[in-house]
Amino acid sequence: MSTFKAKVFVTLKPSILDPQGRTVERALSHLDHGNVGGVRVGKYIELTLSGSRAEVEAQLKDITESVLSNPVMEDARWEISEQQGEERVGA
Amino acid sequence: MSTFKAKVFVTLKPSILDPQGRTVERALSHLDHGNVGGVRVGKYIELTLSGSRAEVEAQLKDITESVLSNPVMEDARWEISEQQGEERVGA
Repeated sequence: MSTFKAKVFVTLKPSILDPQGRTVERALSHLDHGNVGGVRVGKYIELTLSGSRAEVEAQLKDITESVLSNPVMEDARWEISEQQGEERVGA
Repeated sequence: MSTFKAKVFVTLKPSILDPQGRTVERALSHLDHGNVGGVRVGKYIELTLSGSRAEVEAQLKDITESVLSNPVMEDARWEISEQQGEERVGA
């Protein structure tokens, strides 16, 4: 049994409007950052899980799809690494 | 002049309570994910910037510290990559 650290990135699907991102973009433009575009605001979630690697990976996929994101509107991507161990990337 | 894609990760400092993360953790525990802990919810922001690499890096640091995060309560980390180019990581 090991402890794993997971990072989950949740972003709105490209076809979904992002009013929060638009607002940030407009604010930046007023602050003389007119060369900035395509601002999209998503969520970044860190969590730790304990168990075997196979269990934890299946569980993280489930949690990401059912709790941390809304698959209708959002894309989610995750990374998992054993505490002081190697890293593995999934989507 | 090139176009760069930046990813900014904003997290609450470890000493700051994260009620949103606690709520997610409690919800997961009720859903039979009792082995999950340390949930912290942050922001993940994607943006594109145009200009020279040196300009864009300085600008991104400024934007991250002054607009996208609150340095009193939050830590911010960024990655920048030229569109179809190599990647560079900063903090």
